[in-house]
Amino acid sequence: MATSMHLQSSFLAPRNPAHQASHVSPSFSLRYTQNPNPGLSRVAFVCKSAISSPVQEGTKQEQLQDSGRVFNFAAGPATLPASVLKQAQADLYNWRGCGMSLMEVSHRGKEFLSVIQNAESALRSLMRIPDEYAVLFLQGGATTQFSSAPLNLCNSNDSADYVVTGSWSDKAFKEGQKYCNAKVVWNGKAAKYTGLPSQGDLSLTPGAKFLHICANETIHGVEFKDYPTPQGETLLIADMSSNFCSKPVDVSKFSLIYAGAQKNIGPSGVTIVIVRKDLLGSAQPITPVMLDYKIHADNNSLFNTPPCFGIYICGLVFDDLLANGGLEAAEKRNIEKAKLLYDAIDGSNAFFKCPVDKAVRSLMNVPFTMATPELEAEFIKEAAGQGMVQLKGHRSVGGIRASIYNAMPKAGVEKLVALMKAFQARHTS
Amino acid sequence: MATSMHLQSSFLAPRNPAHQASHVSPSFSLRYTQNPNPGLSRVAFVCKSAISSPVQEGTKQEQLQDSGRVFNFAAGPATLPASVLKQAQADLYNWRGCGMSLMEVSHRGKEFLSVIQNAESALRSLMRIPDEYAVLFLQGGATTQFSSAPLNLCNSNDSADYVVTGSWSDKAFKEGQKYCNAKVVWNGKAAKYTGLPSQGDLSLTPGAKFLHICANETIHGVEFKDYPTPQGETLLIADMSSNFCSKPVDVSKFSLIYAGAQKNIGPSGVTIVIVRKDLLGSAQPITPVMLDYKIHADNNSLFNTPPCFGIYICGLVFDDLLANGGLEAAEKRNIEKAKLLYDAIDGSNAFFKCPVDKAVRSLMNVPFTMATPELEAEFIKEAAGQGMVQLKGHRSVGGIRASIYNAMPKAGVEKLVALMKAFQARHTS
Repeated sequence: MATSMHLQSSFLAPRNPAHQASHVSPSFSLRYTQNPNPGLSRVAFVCKSAISSPVQEGTKQEQLQDSGRVFNFAAGPATLPASVLKQAQADLYNWRGCGMSLMEVSHRGKEFLSVIQNAESALRSLMRIPDEYAVLFLQGGATTQFSSAPLNLCNSNDSADYVVTGSWSDKAFKEGQKYCNAKVVWNGKAAKYTGLPSQGDLSLTPGAKFLHICANETIHGVEFKDYPTPQGETLLIADMSSNFCSKPVDVSKFSLIYAGAQKNIGPSGVTIVIVRKDLLGSAQPITPVMLDYKIHADNNSLFNTPPCFGIYICGLVFDDLLANGGLEAAEKRNIEKAKLLYDAIDGSNAFFKCPVDKAVRSLMNVPFTMATPELEAEFIKEAAGQGMVQLKGHRSVGGIRASIYNAMPKAGVEKLVALMKAFQARHTS
Repeated sequence: MATSMHLQSSFLAPRNPAHQASHVSPSFSLRYTQNPNPGLSRVAFVCKSAISSPVQEGTKQEQLQDSGRVFNFAAGPATLPASVLKQAQADLYNWRGCGMSLMEVSHRGKEFLSVIQNAESALRSLMRIPDEYAVLFLQGGATTQFSSAPLNLCNSNDSADYVVTGSWSDKAFKEGQKYCNAKVVWNGKAAKYTGLPSQGDLSLTPGAKFLHICANETIHGVEFKDYPTPQGETLLIADMSSNFCSKPVDVSKFSLIYAGAQKNIGPSGVTIVIVRKDLLGSAQPITPVMLDYKIHADNNSLFNTPPCFGIYICGLVFDDLLANGGLEAAEKRNIEKAKLLYDAIDGSNAFFKCPVDKAVRSLMNVPFTMATPELEAEFIKEAAGQGMVQLKGHRSVGGIRASIYNAMPKAGVEKLVALMKAFQARHTS
């Protein structure tokens, strides 16, 4: 199906060829030739992977035929659809023939307006977001939202409940303490964040302004399957950074959903906020203007210059998800991939161990350990040698972590599982 | 010198070819063929401009030989060096042969660490930044800094002086009022922001914590040539968003310099902060964690996930500036370009008018008017027809604005001036 291709290109390099070479992929064959322009030398190279053959995502074919591509298990920034990267590459220099890169066009011009409007409508379709919700494309990551959420949704003397299920929800709670009467209504720390509470475990505060959860803890690998139900008028808020767009979500259950883009939907530098419009307009007086949801909602995320190129990539990913069956199909693929990996761990007679309660294991981030750190280091090194990279566990917990977001092909998980079995066989004979 | 090239590529398109086509440059010739995968059709295209011929920046040659490239006079996001865009395009899919896009690698991995470290050292070399200053790569634009500056550098009851020379410094003042005792020590509004104060014009507040200026007002086109001197212990703070890296700056005169990247050094979504280290660590208690300079300084801008791809582009631009003579050479080029344009305006017998005081005219943003809005609209339309785009003045002031940042080739200004003369000749006969 695929037809491989090369592209021939050349450009003027800075005075020092070595300096220029440092920017050129080793997969390029370099040739320096004399150039009429004094002080400048010509570099000609053949690129073997810049633009590659047709791919179908999630098949071994892509990885076998797509020269140079590795399986990237990073927790974020993370792997993106190869087809999206190729589209972005083809369009980078001259976007749709406008004579400019999308990085160069005004955020108020027709080119970018079409990009951000398409991205919003694609996301609304994907998640079936009701019209009563504003969709904002912001900056600063989920960490900025740890401040923005309480600043926008409650007064400094309001109570707010936080479910602490890992590092990220704990950071959200600590930041929340600055701006409201934040309380921890459940804490998984004693159990090393390997489980999640059931509704009955939560000591909810009557009259609390909101209940905050982290839908998926990237570091510890616990993911809510059913969401807690707040009482009375309490609003439900979720940080969905690491499982955003990985499965269908009933948005109407939430007053605010926020997510950094760099796990499932794009590059770092873009933050998505989905918030009920009727809650906007009463931010605390100390709220920095850039953290005020209403200002961004009133200006369609164009109050100031947004991260245009990142939003463009997110839009391409949304289109790709829609073209591949939407979030229902994405969830099906993610369940299939996760099952492969968890089954391999559970079937290893404890050679590999996942500490997380089986009922709440993440479909996105799979942490596991081996008998010794030395063995884990050996496994990670061997995996890298086979083109499976960024498997090291978070520095705060150690071990191994395989992040298998939407864009991780099934072939990547199959290859990892194959190595796990071979590695175990070699070390248990 | 240049050898033109085409690249042939193909990939799988979503179910609806029309939908996919909407992402493909008109300069691509499309061919749909049957594909074995149900519901997917193959798109093959020839890209005529994705990767183009060798260019030398700032010469007509680039514009004549670089098919499809227009002269982009946008105020920001703005034109970038063609060679940087081509480098980014070549590396987008597989950065330096690592098997991943730079958008996919962990911000804590060796690949990105080399990028951000190189970007910081290149900027330190370019601006000769003393070691006593921290260089931070942040998010949120200058508008976020309007809050961060007072939150980090003063207490809520401290006095702070603001010089209001246009829309941006006025916004900085209004945001500053939230976090300190902000005072306007000079205001150019009565004169429609066409001038700047001399030292004697400033009614400085004794004991003020800082004096804030906007080094170049993007909308009104006024630029400080000499900077005000604060009294006593008062700190000097400058928003340099729209003239950052356009000329040498004595950093040691300033306690804090901040700039959005999307004018002279990169895409939107990256904000540079240069701040004296000894001033860090006493942020107001209400400061959002993401707005606390010390936290970012202590973590080398990696406290949370930074805008990796944008920082990478900034690094390429810094390298490009260093390879082309640094900021002294950049200033020389910018003076030459600006003189061409201002001379054409001043020599037009008031057919074109620039309202700005000649002594403080911006080298970056050149606003000018004509007799009627209709004439201006006709000129802007004619310019667009000749590949000179985004010349419309800011919606708040109207008229015409030519932003001629570092990456605008002299050939672009020459072409604009040629049209101005021809247009005037046709309308004054």
